[in-house]
Amino acid sequence: MPDRIILIECPDEKGLIYNITKVIYKHNLNVTANQEFVDQYSNTFFMRTMVEGNGWSDEIESELNSVLPNNATVRVAILRKNPLVILATKEPHCLGEILLKNRYGELESDVRAVVSNHDHLRSLAESFNIPFHHVPVGDLSREQHEEKILEAIAPYDPEYLVLAKYMRIFTPGFVKQFPNRIINIHHSFLPAFIGASPYQQAYDRGVKIIGATAHFVTEDLDEGPIIAQDVMPVNHTYTAKGMAQAGQDVEKQVLTRALKLVLEERVFIYRHKTILFE
Amino acid sequence: MPDRIILIECPDEKGLIYNITKVIYKHNLNVTANQEFVDQYSNTFFMRTMVEGNGWSDEIESELNSVLPNNATVRVAILRKNPLVILATKEPHCLGEILLKNRYGELESDVRAVVSNHDHLRSLAESFNIPFHHVPVGDLSREQHEEKILEAIAPYDPEYLVLAKYMRIFTPGFVKQFPNRIINIHHSFLPAFIGASPYQQAYDRGVKIIGATAHFVTEDLDEGPIIAQDVMPVNHTYTAKGMAQAGQDVEKQVLTRALKLVLEERVFIYRHKTILFE
Amino acid sequence: MPDRIILIECPDEKGLIYNITKVIYKHNLNVTANQEFVDQYSNTFFMRTMVEGNGWSDEIESELNSVLPNNATVRVAILRKNPLVILATKEPHCLGEILLKNRYGELESDVRAVVSNHDHLRSLAESFNIPFHHVPVGDLSREQHEEKILEAIAPYDPEYLVLAKYMRIFTPGFVKQFPNRIINIHHSFLPAFIGASPYQQAYDRGVKIIGATAHFVTEDLDEGPIIAQDVMPVNHTYTAKGMAQAGQDVEKQVLTRALKLVLEERVFIYRHKTILFE
Amino acid sequence: MPDRIILIECPDEKGLIYNITKVIYKHNLNVTANQEFVDQYSNTFFMRTMVEGNGWSDEIESELNSVLPNNATVRVAILRKNPLVILATKEPHCLGEILLKNRYGELESDVRAVVSNHDHLRSLAESFNIPFHHVPVGDLSREQHEEKILEAIAPYDPEYLVLAKYMRIFTPGFVKQFPNRIINIHHSFLPAFIGASPYQQAYDRGVKIIGATAHFVTEDLDEGPIIAQDVMPVNHTYTAKGMAQAGQDVEKQVLTRALKLVLEERVFIYRHKTILFE
Repeated sequence: MPDRIILIECPDEKGLIYNITKVIYKHNLNVTANQEFVDQYSNTFFMRTMVEGNGWSDEIESELNSVLPNNATVRVAILRKNPLVILATKEPHCLGEILLKNRYGELESDVRAVVSNHDHLRSLAESFNIPFHHVPVGDLSREQHEEKILEAIAPYDPEYLVLAKYMRIFTPGFVKQFPNRIINIHHSFLPAFIGASPYQQAYDRGVKIIGATAHFVTEDLDEGPIIAQDVMPVNHTYTAKGMAQAGQDVEKQVLTRALKLVLEERVFIYRHKTILFE
Repeated sequence: MPDRIILIECPDEKGLIYNITKVIYKHNLNVTANQEFVDQYSNTFFMRTMVEGNGWSDEIESELNSVLPNNATVRVAILRKNPLVILATKEPHCLGEILLKNRYGELESDVRAVVSNHDHLRSLAESFNIPFHHVPVGDLSREQHEEKILEAIAPYDPEYLVLAKYMRIFTPGFVKQFPNRIINIHHSFLPAFIGASPYQQAYDRGVKIIGATAHFVTEDLDEGPIIAQDVMPVNHTYTAKGMAQAGQDVEKQVLTRALKLVLEERVFIYRHKTILFE
Repeated sequence: MPDRIILIECPDEKGLIYNITKVIYKHNLNVTANQEFVDQYSNTFFMRTMVEGNGWSDEIESELNSVLPNNATVRVAILRKNPLVILATKEPHCLGEILLKNRYGELESDVRAVVSNHDHLRSLAESFNIPFHHVPVGDLSREQHEEKILEAIAPYDPEYLVLAKYMRIFTPGFVKQFPNRIINIHHSFLPAFIGASPYQQAYDRGVKIIGATAHFVTEDLDEGPIIAQDVMPVNHTYTAKGMAQAGQDVEKQVLTRALKLVLEERVFIYRHKTILFE
Repeated sequence: MPDRIILIECPDEKGLIYNITKVIYKHNLNVTANQEFVDQYSNTFFMRTMVEGNGWSDEIESELNSVLPNNATVRVAILRKNPLVILATKEPHCLGEILLKNRYGELESDVRAVVSNHDHLRSLAESFNIPFHHVPVGDLSREQHEEKILEAIAPYDPEYLVLAKYMRIFTPGFVKQFPNRIINIHHSFLPAFIGASPYQQAYDRGVKIIGATAHFVTEDLDEGPIIAQDVMPVNHTYTAKGMAQAGQDVEKQVLTRALKLVLEERVFIYRHKTILFE
């Protein structure tokens, strides 16, 4: 039997762990990893439990619900290669990193296609035998272009869309179709340098550190829940372009770290923030 | 009622968390933090649980033992200002950092005295109103000197000895009197550069990173369980002396981070390694 | 003869290094360290050169000017213990770190006094035998309070003011009296979380990294030239208060790193940014 | 005219920079970057100078020699895509990273072939249209196998060999044929965990940080001059295998950082150490 991951979110109260593990124990399952967190401000309890054993039964989910407070959310996941579609524009570094890690099983991913508003990255995708779809903007309105993007994506039925330096902003209408299912890499340490040309902004401000932020995409640009961030030192010798080149390694590391967390079912989204059980 | 920290180590088996939390729930206590780890090689279970509530009773410890496998270790701790004696030699940075953090309550510590084989740091200790004992080596044998060190320490009845750049090596006979209760800062990234003059060794080897290691002291020099490590970049412009100066900030940070973990009862020692519930 | 540090800023042109080192060579001085930088956008040349030898003469400065383009700035500095006044409010960590490093000669500093709007840190300053001045705000207007601060500072004739978590904002009128001579630590990674309560802002946004920024104070709040920045990872378990506590170590490290650079004459300020010759 | 990089190593003496820049100035060249270092122990001067302009003449090299002390070494380089051959075994991460960066011009490299003792990575190399040579060990002696490796390499005439997790040790006889021209990635923070299975060693010791080291290969195993190192935190939850997986990202970053430095002519080798002009 494959291992199950039980993900619980509910109001905190005494005895929760006891009541939850009682159900698990009754079904003769073994807990192989277990993490909890209580948000003090909202008094909300979060738990991620991995269980193994032959006793799994689909009744467990309802049994858990019966011992939990009202308004509990119980989700049971099985680790699997999640179907993904990658969107990119011209820069190869994030796409290349994902394709390499996807090929060698370093992510719980099944990259099914690459979709782009330019044709630059076709040969990279095709080197990895991944279908590539060029959806040029041309004279299309934003909505019309998104419609064609959706058409390109649809046959692959992805669990997540990954924006690997996709340099266009989606309309709220598009985002709504993939709630908490679009992951973006922003090339700055958010919330510094929101919006366009973050490296130019960083250069202009004279910062000594640059960074990257992977986040879920919501209808508010650059305001989605942050999954992972990292930084690197720079100094006065870096031009804005030099920062952009140097920042590429951080961008790809942060994006793949975020992807790994999401694909391994380690992320709760709660009130515009994330809880990570690493 | 003060919060209790329950620390459990036992062979792993199904239902442990259930059985443990049943006892806690029965006594109407609330779990405020909970962490577990199973060592896969030895099949050993470790758990650190913080509980709050009025229901605490000293019977809980034996009730827990009754539901755990044989060979279980249960320890119940209450957060308190642990009595410490600091040993140092001439360098002030680690001692100064501890005295500052001790004074302002940033560590669960009660530094009761500083003992040194030199007199250099007397004024620093006395600035903080901490008794200072100079125990010169002079013509004493190693054992005779240690005897005098012990005499200086004894009235303060410390829970831990902290070697804050104490530049002498203790005999196994001394170490045995404080099993797992002596914490040292070694000025290298162990196990690189074991022994004397680690910065000179690092310079000679031309490393690009130097570091520091806080560890429990055992009878085997530089082989005790590692609690915390950190590093910093260096380059060809650093002399051995320059590395030593630059490394001081890392040393004091690593030592106080390790102390914080130990004093907050977050450290299990297991087979020459540490398990940290951070 | 003490070593001299020659600091040159001028429009870039061919032969600058040749012409500068010719003057140095003619006076039989030895270059012990030398760093240059050309800002590509403004075509401006910066150079920091350390020289040793008996041949120093004050004519060298004018000789250098005679071989440099118009609008050159030549400054000659001698390493010395710079007189400082520290301003702080209630938090001891930055002040304590500076006082320790000042006492043991780790900074080119001569801390002459601590001035505060509260009395909390008196005993800390006095432990280090540094005069402490409490200048309460009471019913004073901002300008009246600053006037009293100036009166407290004046007798010490400081080269730099260091704001070691001084939690009031100075008026432009005050700042103008110490142009490029006030160094502040801001408890965030600027330009993220400008203004009040940066840790609360960081908590609210759900960032995974927090930081600190040391900068020169200009009339535009939080917009002065950045000298040093550093960060540390955080996660969902940190409250805003927990971030503030954890951030203290980063704050004090960043502030003393910046101070070290400034006091060793390694910093050029140019167009709201810094050039650091580390 | 392409930019030239002038690399000078000689005994230190007064006036060196003046004498060198005089030659450059006389030929009407512009210095675009300039870095010097004097090793205090051996009194040796190192300089890396980039010059641009139409005045370049091959006489400059001999003119520089004529103004320098005896025993000076002057080398003039032009940035170019250096021919490389990569050796690897089974792990794809370092090879994949180099192939991506090579393809998109992020390294001054021209990867001409991949040679391996196994056939696993053939498809990866071929995805990037790079010739792949499988040289199985079979019944061959170490020397016989190296002979065949040399035969596979020879037609590509590489400037450098890059060992991208090539898991065999070369004989001194092989190494001698590529003096200072073989770059290896060792999967530990050298000199900790020399030899085989460094991650297992790291696990056994219970370190809290793991790392990787890129170095030139010399006849003494794991003792060659270190070019770059980096580390990452680990904890008790990592098995030896988990450390190996987690360490892959550090390995590939360290190896490509070292390659970038070498290929941009930023590395001097001096007495078993490196001087890096970054």
